[in-house]
Order: sequence, then structure tokens, then C-alpha cells
Amino acid sequence: MLFAVRMAVDLPLDLDPRFREELLATEKAYSQELQRTGQWVHLWRVVGEYSNLSVFDVEGNAELHELLWNLPLFKYMRIEVTPLAPHPSAVSDGPGA
Amino acid sequence: MLFAVRMAVDLPLDLDPRFREELLATEKAYSQELQRTGQWVHLWRVVGEYSNLSVFDVEGNAELHELLWNLPLFKYMRIEVTPLAPHPSAVSDGPGA
Amino acid sequence: MLFAVRMAVDLPLDLDPRFREELLATEKAYSQELQRTGQWVHLWRVVGEYSNLSVFDVEGNAELHELLWNLPLFKYMRIEVTPLAPHPSAVSDGPGA
Amino acid sequence: MLFAVRMAVDLPLDLDPRFREELLATEKAYSQELQRTGQWVHLWRVVGEYSNLSVFDVEGNAELHELLWNLPLFKYMRIEVTPLAPHPSAVSDGPGA
Amino acid sequence: MLFAVRMAVDLPLDLDPRFREELLATEKAYSQELQRTGQWVHLWRVVGEYSNLSVFDVEGNAELHELLWNLPLFKYMRIEVTPLAPHPSAVSDGPGA
Amino acid sequence: MLFAVRMAVDLPLDLDPRFREELLATEKAYSQELQRTGQWVHLWRVVGEYSNLSVFDVEGNAELHELLWNLPLFKYMRIEVTPLAPHPSAVSDGPGA
Amino acid sequence: MLFAVRMAVDLPLDLDPRFREELLATEKAYSQELQRTGQWVHLWRVVGEYSNLSVFDVEGNAELHELLWNLPLFKYMRIEVTPLAPHPSAVSDGPGA
Amino acid sequence: MLFAVRMAVDLPLDLDPRFREELLATEKAYSQELQRTGQWVHLWRVVGEYSNLSVFDVEGNAELHELLWNLPLFKYMRIEVTPLAPHPSAVSDGPGA
Amino acid sequence: MLFAVRMAVDLPLDLDPRFREELLATEKAYSQELQRTGQWVHLWRVVGEYSNLSVFDVEGNAELHELLWNLPLFKYMRIEVTPLAPHPSAVSDGPGA
Amino acid sequence: MLFAVRMAVDLPLDLDPRFREELLATEKAYSQELQRTGQWVHLWRVVGEYSNLSVFDVEGNAELHELLWNLPLFKYMRIEVTPLAPHPSAVSDGPGA
Repeated sequence: MLFAVRMAVDLPLDLDPRFREELLATEKAYSQELQRTGQWVHLWRVVGEYSNLSVFDVEGNAELHELLWNLPLFKYMRIEVTPLAPHPSAVSDGPGA
Repeated sequence: MLFAVRMAVDLPLDLDPRFREELLATEKAYSQELQRTGQWVHLWRVVGEYSNLSVFDVEGNAELHELLWNLPLFKYMRIEVTPLAPHPSAVSDGPGA
Repeated sequence: MLFAVRMAVDLPLDLDPRFREELLATEKAYSQELQRTGQWVHLWRVVGEYSNLSVFDVEGNAELHELLWNLPLFKYMRIEVTPLAPHPSAVSDGPGA
Repeated sequence: MLFAVRMAVDLPLDLDPRFREELLATEKAYSQELQRTGQWVHLWRVVGEYSNLSVFDVEGNAELHELLWNLPLFKYMRIEVTPLAPHPSAVSDGPGA
Repeated sequence: MLFAVRMAVDLPLDLDPRFREELLATEKAYSQELQRTGQWVHLWRVVGEYSNLSVFDVEGNAELHELLWNLPLFKYMRIEVTPLAPHPSAVSDGPGA
Repeated sequence: MLFAVRMAVDLPLDLDPRFREELLATEKAYSQELQRTGQWVHLWRVVGEYSNLSVFDVEGNAELHELLWNLPLFKYMRIEVTPLAPHPSAVSDGPGA
Repeated sequence: MLFAVRMAVDLPLDLDPRFREELLATEKAYSQELQRTGQWVHLWRVVGEYSNLSVFDVEGNAELHELLWNLPLFKYMRIEVTPLAPHPSAVSDGPGA
Repeated sequence: MLFAVRMAVDLPLDLDPRFREELLATEKAYSQELQRTGQWVHLWRVVGEYSNLSVFDVEGNAELHELLWNLPLFKYMRIEVTPLAPHPSAVSDGPGA
Repeated sequence: MLFAVRMAVDLPLDLDPRFREELLATEKAYSQELQRTGQWVHLWRVVGEYSNLSVFDVEGNAELHELLWNLPLFKYMRIEVTPLAPHPSAVSDGPGA
Repeated sequence: MLFAVRMAVDLPLDLDPRFREELLATEKAYSQELQRTGQWVHLWRVVGEYSNLSVFDVEGNAELHELLWNLPLFKYMRIEVTPLAPHPSAVSDGPGA
């Protein structure tokens, strides 16, 4: 079950540099783990912004919320979720299509 | 080079049913041809709306505009284009990733 | 799996009265059938508007889209979908809670 | 008398951790007490956000304002209130339906 | 129990003049009857717009919706409802204060 | 001459409690004085918000601005002013109607 | 007493040319009469739009509404009214300053 | 050549009182000098806001930007610029009309 | 003196095809004439939209309004004008830079 | 391949003056280097704002994001990107046209 998720990051300007570095490393590891399990299917940078457009493939709403809520950057982000369904004109139709 | 494209369809309520049917068939054929050439990489329905969220993989802006401008439904749609770039935390990195 | 859905109806002012009457009767029957199957859990009128706020309990995104797409009033409505998850402070926790 | 209420929480990033913990515990207790009295009928998490969608069943506007104003998190939240009325197509019709 | 209600009228430009005249007369009579019963407490014109700002004093949400839904101009209006509560600094405190 | 005024209060979270208390007391006194002179005709709380909806009866724009500019909470508020005129369907027509 | 008024004109595309011509002539005459009485103090075209920005000098809200309501183009316009007051840094201070 | 300019002031709540006083005095002097040169033609207070609506008469875009950029309050303001042109129905037509 | 101008075209769906063709040919000729005189400096298509982003180099506001007002497509377009000034970091500085 | 980019700068009011000066000098040098390589084709000031409207000519989305992400002022700016394509009515057609 797919969801488009747009995340816009807004880090405080005065964040301690070391903390910032560790935070971003944790976020990256967390994100890559979910990509490897197949839950975080796509991850793209939005050009010119500290934002990403992602697609998640999860069992349902509760699982998606759990994944997003636990993002290390969660409290520094504004997140918009768009539920997706198969499109009748789509040629491919596997999971994460 | 990837672009996210959101298309919202707004067909006139009084469209001639036969014309409507042909129009939608033409749109579907056009869309599926672009999916087969690999230019229209993803096509998802937005739940509860007559809209789709798509991802295109094209040579550049001009090619993308050409593809969208020639959509049979073009004049019945509101289209938003978001240029995408590779994300440094993305694990996969092939075309259409 | 729960979704909040807000539907705003915008019927053409010049709709044929008989067609309008039949349309609304079909909508009502369709809605009540889904309420009886337990998929359309709540249905409230928004005060002062030709709108409703509803809660659906479905298997997932695809089922929800199917239900909404087939609403007799679908093409006369603007629909907003909000995915819901269990709240950690909620006391009750059954389906449709 | 039912109202839909959407609450979006925005805690300061530098809130003292202990104060934060106590604050959230107080909020939870307050919320659960109102759920038990039957005034706070539904409480759902909005997926991907530090927000909830709730339904209250109260005597009137003054009682609703009193309940919301006294939320321990009140000054950290943005709240939107939508008055609801029975829907003529609704099958069930008990309180909190 | 008070509600602020803002109504913006948008009559079709090609409405039959006689129908328009009758419609507005009916609206006026309906409005004045509710003013006399004490349900429609205030009725002001918004300067420069075909809009009004009103205050209603009703038993609750359902009664308010009933009154608004039956406005002869209902289907030509966009309506916004704001529930009101007594203000702790208000000097007067009678009904419709 | 009537104006609807909506005031939304946004006090800094870290305001000194004693200063806050005095500030609110001054605001209340100021507001009640204007209510007694008949310039601040109505004062209602907007349910679920730290906001009010008010109606002022003044000689003109300059007087209204003077009154609002001198509100003790002025610099903590966002204010929207809507000029009102008599409505042709209004039954009552006295000042402050 | 001054008000800034922004008027955006939206004439139907299929308006009868002769009616359109007469309508605009009437509007022009009406506008110039009010300019000569000193009530319509300034009238500027907004560059690139079928809009104007105007300043009116009137006795009060009721008079302004009367003037605007009777604009021949009233039902083809969207109007925004902004009440103005003398500015403490303004050098000139006559009426219509 | 005329431009409407709307300036909304947003001073930090904790600005040093003496600095604030000097800042505002400098702003006033700067504004009055431009009023005397005839570049700042009109300056009105927007009722209920710490904002003004102004009209400038300048040689062109570059001069206007220079004047606004050098406002002592520039970095505390949000500014909107609207280019104006003569209106064909305007009676007066001198500079600053 | 430069202005950025964004034009969004919205042709009626039922426009007579021959009229449409002539209209667009007239628009193109008009546009190209202004490009040759050096007044319409840049003309770009916005990808995915029936819109353009343009830059004009004119004597002032009145000339720009005249050019835009006389666009054959004027009444089918929504136009936004942004006045531009030289940027202190710009390397080139000729007209139309 | 061209992109319009609008950048709005929002520097913290309490930025250390020396740091601010160095930051702006670095930004200027960075911008001018990209102007000399032909990637930053146009750079205009938006009148009355600490903003610019720019046009970039790059190989594609990834290159544009790289250039913007590395702007010394990046974290102090809000950036909007609009992909451009050749316009069929444009007379000139060279790169950066």
C-alpha cells in the first residue's frame, strides 16, 4: 500500500554543529534501513529545497505513522501524506510500482 | 532526469458521453506508450480524487513540456511540476529510482 | 484502518429536478449500504454547508478509493482524505473507535 | 451536540525534558478523563503529524470552549473547531454517532 | 448559544429578473421571521460586498444547520460558521449579548 | 458606525508570569471601560481559540484605530477589521443593532 | 474619512458588445460624478490587470457601501475595502491627504 | 510614475526601548523628507494594524527600490509593491493624482 | 526598466476553432512585434502549463500597462507583474540584462 | 536548459555584523563566479524586497540543485524553482534567451 510523503526540513540556525552532524547521520542510517526493508520505496530531493519527496510501501496507516514519527528529524520537519492507489492506466503493477 | 508531476482532471459535467469515452481511451493509450518508452516512470491515483501523481524520466524541461502539452486531457487538467534530484541518502540510484 | 474524509457537494444550479432527486436517492442508498457493511463508520453534516465529515474503516487505500470513486455524487464533489492512526492517549481501541 | 476538533501540537524545541514529560502525562490524563465522561468521543492521530482529529459531545459552545481552554497543551496548540449536525443519510443516530 | 455566521451571496448573472425578485423577497421574509423569534440576533451588511455578518442564538448545532439549510438563498451562498462563547471580560452577559 | 473586529492573541510562551498577569488585568480594565462608554458593543470568545470577535460602535476610522492601537495587548495580537453597514433586511436598527 | 478600495472587474466573455459598451459608459459617468463631488478621491489602474485601486472620502461606512453597491459594474466585480486613518508621520493632513 | 506600497511593521517584542525610540524617530524623519521631495505622495495608517498604505511618485523601479531599501525599518517590514497607471476614467491627471 | 510578467492563459473550452486559431495567430504576431522593438525582452514557457514567464523593458508603468492591456489574449489571461531593479551582485548591466 | 528561481532572503535580525558582512561577500563572489561560467544567466532584484528573481542555464535538475544547495545564503533563503521551456512565439532562441 503506497503513500507519497513530502518532508520539509527546518533545522534551527543555531543548532550545535556536532549534534547536527550526529542527527543527520542517524537520520541517514534510519532512512537507509527502511529503504532496505522495502518500506521506503523512493527518496528524491526536491530541487532548490531542503525537502524530499518519498514513496512508502507499508501495511497501513498505523505502520506509516510509526515510521514517520520515529524519524530522527521528525520534530524538525513538516510532513504531508498523500494516500495512493493503483491507477487504471498504469502498465506495471508490482509492489512499489 | 526526474520530475514529479501532479495532474488534476476537471472534465466538464456536460461532456458528450461518446466524446468523453474516446478522449479517455486516447489518454490511456498515450499514457501507456510513454510508460513503455520509459519516460512516464510512475503513475499513481491520488485516493479520493480524479488526480494522479506521476514521475517522468526525460532528457530535460523541453521534452517534459512536450509530453505534457500533448496529453489528450491537457486542456482539462491543472498540472504541477516538481523537479527532482538524487537524494544523498538514497540507496538505489538507477534511472527512475 | 481509518480515514477521515470530508466531502463538499457542488451541484449545478440548473440540474434537472427529477435527475437531481434520483441522484440524491441513489447517493443515500449507496451511503447507507456502506454504513451497514461497516465501511462508512461515521457520517456527520458540517453545519451551514452542503458538506459532510465522514470516517471510513477499510482494508486500505485501494478499497477507499474504490468506494469514493463510485459515489453517485463523486463528480459533483471535492473530497479531502486524511489517513488516521490509533492515538496513544485513546481509551477505547476497537475498530471504528 | 457534536464538534470535530483538529489540534496541531507545536512544542518549543528547547522545552525542558522533564517539564515536557510531565506536561504530556498531564495532557494524557486530562484527555482520558474526558473520554471516560463521554465528552471526548473520538481521538485519532493524523498520520505523519503531531496532530489529532477528535470529536467532542458537549452541551454547547461554552462547555466545549471550557474543555479546550483547559487542555494542558492549549498554549502549544493550534485548534480548529467544526460544528457537526446529524446527517439525513446516517443510519445510526445515537449520541456520539 | 451564539454563532457568528458570514454569508456571501453569489447569484448567477443571468437569473430571471422576476425569479430573482421573488427569491430575494422570500429571503427577506424568512430572515425577518427569524429575527423576530430571536434566533437571528444580528444582521449586518459587509461594506462593499454582497455579504452579511450575522449572529444567531440557537439551541445548538442541529437547529442552526436547519435554519441555514432552509435559507431561500442557501444554494447561492458560501457560509462560514464560527461558534462563540461568553468572553470573561464581557460586561453584559444576557442572551444575544 | 459599526465595525467587526477579530483579535487573535499570541503571547510569548516565556512571558514573565507576573507581567503577564498585570498585562491581562490592564487589558480587561481597558476593554470594560470601552464597553461601558458604548464603543465596544459586543465581545465574544471564539471557541477553541485565544481570540475574540468584537463589534465596535465609533465615530469613524480614526477613532477605531486609536482604540485598537492603545489596547494593552496590541503588540501581541493580529487584528482584522471589517466595516459594517445597516442591512436592508434587518428588523432592528438602533445604534449597536 | 478615507477608505482604500480595490476593485477587480470580471466581465462575462460573452457579454453582448452593445450592452458592454453602455455598461462601461455608465460606469465611467458614475465614477466621474463621484470624483467631482470629492467622494472618489483617487482612481488608479493596477498595471496588467482589469482592476483599480481607489481611495474614497466619505462620511462613514454606510455611505461608502451605498456608493459601491450602486456601481453599474458592482455585480461584475470583486471588491476589497481597507479603512484608513491618519498616519502620525504624514506631513500633509487635509481631507483626502 | 506611481506605485502603491503596503508596509507591515513587525518589531521584535524585546527590542531595546531606547533603540526602538531612535529607530522610529529616524524612520519618521526619513519618511517626512521623502514626503517633502514629493516622492512619498501619500501615507495612510491601515486601521487596526501596525501597517501603512503609501503611494510613491518616482522616476522608475530602481529609484523606488532604493527608497524602500533604505527605510530605517526595512528589515522589520514586509513590503508589497503594486505598480499603478493612469485610469481612463480618472478626472484629475496631474502627477500624484 | 524591467518587469517580470507571468501570464496564465485560460481559453474557454468551447471556443470556436477558427476564432481560436486566428486569435492565437494575432497574439503571436503582436508578441513578436514587441520582441523586435525590444520591449518584450524574454518569453519563456512554464513547463506543464499554458503559461509564460516574460520580461519587459519599458519606459514605465503606463507603457507596460498599455502593452499588456492590448494583448489579443488579455481577457483570457491572469497576469502578475513584478517590478525589477538592478541587483548589486549582477555582473552584466546593459538594458534587458 | 533554463529555470526561473526566486530567492527570498531572511537573515536573523541579531546576526553578528562581521559574520553577516563576510557571508554576503561570499555570496556575492559565489554568484558572480556562476554568472561568469554562464550558469546564472540573469539576476534581478525584486523591488521593495530582499529577494531576487534569477534565471539559470544548467545541464539538468541535479546540477541546478547542486548550485542552489551550495549558495552561502542557502539556509537563510526560501527558494522557488520554475522549469522553463522554449516558447513557440519567441523570436530569439539561443541559450539563455
